[in-house]
Amino acid sequence: MSKGRLEAFSDGVLAIIITIMVLELKVPDGADLTALQPLIPVFASYTLSFVFIGIYWNNHHHLFQAVQKINGNVLWANMHLLFWISLIPFTTSWMGENEFLAWPVAFYGISLWMSGLAYFILVRTLLAIHPEDSPLAIAIGSDTKGYVSLALYTTAIPLSFVSARFASLLYVAVAIIWFIPDRRIEKTLAK
Amino acid sequence: MSKGRLEAFSDGVLAIIITIMVLELKVPDGADLTALQPLIPVFASYTLSFVFIGIYWNNHHHLFQAVQKINGNVLWANMHLLFWISLIPFTTSWMGENEFLAWPVAFYGISLWMSGLAYFILVRTLLAIHPEDSPLAIAIGSDTKGYVSLALYTTAIPLSFVSARFASLLYVAVAIIWFIPDRRIEKTLAK
Amino acid sequence: MSKGRLEAFSDGVLAIIITIMVLELKVPDGADLTALQPLIPVFASYTLSFVFIGIYWNNHHHLFQAVQKINGNVLWANMHLLFWISLIPFTTSWMGENEFLAWPVAFYGISLWMSGLAYFILVRTLLAIHPEDSPLAIAIGSDTKGYVSLALYTTAIPLSFVSARFASLLYVAVAIIWFIPDRRIEKTLAK
Amino acid sequence: MSKGRLEAFSDGVLAIIITIMVLELKVPDGADLTALQPLIPVFASYTLSFVFIGIYWNNHHHLFQAVQKINGNVLWANMHLLFWISLIPFTTSWMGENEFLAWPVAFYGISLWMSGLAYFILVRTLLAIHPEDSPLAIAIGSDTKGYVSLALYTTAIPLSFVSARFASLLYVAVAIIWFIPDRRIEKTLAK
Repeated sequence: MSKGRLEAFSDGVLAIIITIMVLELKVPDGADLTALQPLIPVFASYTLSFVFIGIYWNNHHHLFQAVQKINGNVLWANMHLLFWISLIPFTTSWMGENEFLAWPVAFYGISLWMSGLAYFILVRTLLAIHPEDSPLAIAIGSDTKGYVSLALYTTAIPLSFVSARFASLLYVAVAIIWFIPDRRIEKTLAK
Repeated sequence: MSKGRLEAFSDGVLAIIITIMVLELKVPDGADLTALQPLIPVFASYTLSFVFIGIYWNNHHHLFQAVQKINGNVLWANMHLLFWISLIPFTTSWMGENEFLAWPVAFYGISLWMSGLAYFILVRTLLAIHPEDSPLAIAIGSDTKGYVSLALYTTAIPLSFVSARFASLLYVAVAIIWFIPDRRIEKTLAK
Repeated sequence: MSKGRLEAFSDGVLAIIITIMVLELKVPDGADLTALQPLIPVFASYTLSFVFIGIYWNNHHHLFQAVQKINGNVLWANMHLLFWISLIPFTTSWMGENEFLAWPVAFYGISLWMSGLAYFILVRTLLAIHPEDSPLAIAIGSDTKGYVSLALYTTAIPLSFVSARFASLLYVAVAIIWFIPDRRIEKTLAK
Repeated sequence: MSKGRLEAFSDGVLAIIITIMVLELKVPDGADLTALQPLIPVFASYTLSFVFIGIYWNNHHHLFQAVQKINGNVLWANMHLLFWISLIPFTTSWMGENEFLAWPVAFYGISLWMSGLAYFILVRTLLAIHPEDSPLAIAIGSDTKGYVSLALYTTAIPLSFVSARFASLLYVAVAIIWFIPDRRIEKTLAK
């Protein structure tokens, strides 16, 4: 089974998710600067989610460059990942329109947590059909970043009810950690 | 005629259909947990339809891997399939926003029934231009799953007016049947 | 310059146009059959436009299979075609929500007329960079269908103000004429 | 690292951006010509932005034809470009619905300015990993058009508060300058 269509379908879904989020930036009624003011938290949450989905696309891209074969389980693990990412526009808007209040910030974290878990499952599903000395297995390595991200999300979700602002900063921290694409894979493939 | 663009166009349409459904998860006004409560049936119907469209994409993918040639009839049979699938976001929302009442549940079944029929026609159109001993013909075989699905939909549609809840469970049953991608094709190709 | 990305971009735009039209099928408030009644003309116009955009995709597909090279003018002629097709969702909804009244039916015809003209320009732009004995030139031939369509649209637009119903039937007639994909090209390439 | 998926993802995002703008052409309530009148500025801004995004797609296409390799920085420079272009539908609607008033026209210019800057950064990121005598480097050359565009945007943004109409004409001027795709690259590659 070729990975071409899986990549194309994922590209399509991620491209749509990243773009429909902008529809939540509702055009304001007024034509001056004050009309834009209520949009600032919506814009902030849009930017954060744009970076997160950009990170997922980048990592997905790097991951599948090292993939040599796929099977039916991989198709479903990938679909599962896309499902949780597809909820990010919803949690993004809820958080943005409520100016980063506790519950919306917690749910935003849950949607990131589930996406992170789904990505983890996808990686394991791929490793299960690749030999231990494959470029994929070597490139994934110990997956420190993945574990750190899940730990930070796990901290941020309950923290939302203490300080939603600080919980949001933890999400930004995860984004910064992943901002640099998965150079592990890039380096291994370059060898 | 190459199948590449048919696959690409279908991937695009299915990617959009699966993603725009999330737009029906309208961002609630409140910022606490009770504000999310009315969204539970909408979310349930979204999840069910995400799985169904995921199944269609998976089966479409498996099907076209075994396809060796296409013609103008195949293009239209495929377009016909996409037409009925494109109505699923509408029936999904109608069902979700009316908390799985009789008529919406019946119409949801009709949109699945027509999609199932259109898939059946697509398969027949493809078989008509492949020899009887082609990988495609062998892989399709007796198509038991297809017949069982149509039988379950045919039961569920009138059943909606007796027990919409039970009819909905039949849809879930079909989803479970198809959840495992068409291993018939996968196995035949692997030989 | 390769035609691959032009095809991919056109597939993307056409896939989105054909799919976002379904968003105009607004989920009704009621949960019984009478709630769906006002949607009948919207559904009729959706179906008609789905077929038209399906026809454009099919013909575009057939056309570019015979294309051997493209240039900057072709990119813009193609973008021009996509521009007019992108207005079809708007004219479709206006026509459907006003139950096929005069002005909306006329504007629907104008959007089809302009799309038809843009397709004609695209074909000429392609012929200008292909030799007269190329598969493309032979396949296009006299382009009777194209002229007949433009003639029927030209009739239908003023006719909308006399009988919008009859004008709409002329659009259906054009759809039927084109329903069968451009077998001229298919046959020529098969030789 | 192959450029195929970067092109596919960019095509997807640009196809969606160019198409969702048409959703702002809200279907009017009336069915006669006067009902369309308020849509004229919205349509004008839609057309202008369609051309701008068409230009970005064309230039992106030309640019990546000359590209021989990419890396992680290029992925992010490209994502950064898509971010700013994704804001164009918002600024387009704000400008169109406020009939080209001062602040909306200025913000439209800012979204173009940032997109132009992001494109400039993408080009520099690509040049950094290509040798000085590569087809890309030769094709880019002195990039006069890029500098002229940024200069015109820089003029138009403050000018919006003096004459929004004249500032809008400067945007049209930039569109005309770029309308002809980047023949520099086309010519160099043809050698």
